[in-house]
Amino acid sequence: MAACIFCKIIKGEIPAFKLFESEKVFAFLDIQPLSRGHALVIPKFHGEKLHDIPDDQLAELLPVAKNIAIACGAIDYNILQNNGKIAHQFVPHVSIPMIPKPNEEEGLVVSWPIQQTDMDKLKVLHAEIKAKM
Amino acid sequence: MAACIFCKIIKGEIPAFKLFESEKVFAFLDIQPLSRGHALVIPKFHGEKLHDIPDDQLAELLPVAKNIAIACGAIDYNILQNNGKIAHQFVPHVSIPMIPKPNEEEGLVVSWPIQQTDMDKLKVLHAEIKAKM
Ligand SMILES: [Zn+2]
Ligand SMILES: [Zn+2]
Repeated sequence: MAACIFCKIIKGEIPAFKLFESEKVFAFLDIQPLSRGHALVIPKFHGEKLHDIPDDQLAELLPVAKNIAIACGAIDYNILQNNGKIAHQFVPHVSIPMIPKPNEEEGLVVSWPIQQTDMDKLKVLHAEIKAKM
Repeated sequence: MAACIFCKIIKGEIPAFKLFESEKVFAFLDIQPLSRGHALVIPKFHGEKLHDIPDDQLAELLPVAKNIAIACGAIDYNILQNNGKIAHQFVPHVSIPMIPKPNEEEGLVVSWPIQQTDMDKLKVLHAEIKAKM
């Protein structure tokens, strides 16, 4: 994808604070961090959303995010993967931010609007999803 | 871990709306969903935070989350992995929620408090983290 910012970073056409590179994965510091150590782990395979990426291109992403968390000394942190603009995806190439959470103010801020539990609806949904897996 | 809720769910000691099980991974519907289809993918290996889990136990987690997103017809969705109470971790066993984002109100709500970019600090941090990887 010629116009994709992340594909350009992978190719070295845009400079980046590279932390790791393998055959399938590239990782670098986010230059608009939410906290110290905020990094992005991306598959080299171009795809907009997680369901566009083959399984074998996904396997290494969490281990790399984990190793960056360890290397930057993060104790508490969020790993995120946003699909779609409404879900806060900014670049149309799958990415996995590893965002240290040193205190309440810095890092990812999350709201958790729990819905009322409806066990009957969940039973129906469960059967529905299972039938498609 | 005898007292761990997720370990009990894996063993079948607590009932769950199971969606998938393999040698290393277990997935089920969250009964306190943020949106329809909200599911949890967990490693069977007990560990509190991502950095407590061996790489080979992590490889299958994103592929399973992806397949649940596809099976429940999610178009926009967030995948999350919280480490530490301050980072919204509720159960001390690694989990990967797949949370459909059908509209602004339902699903995960995220704030993105970007910090001022300081390229000099980033350069120093980059060298620091790279040295530890
Ligand atoms: Zn791309
Ligand atoms: Zn456990």
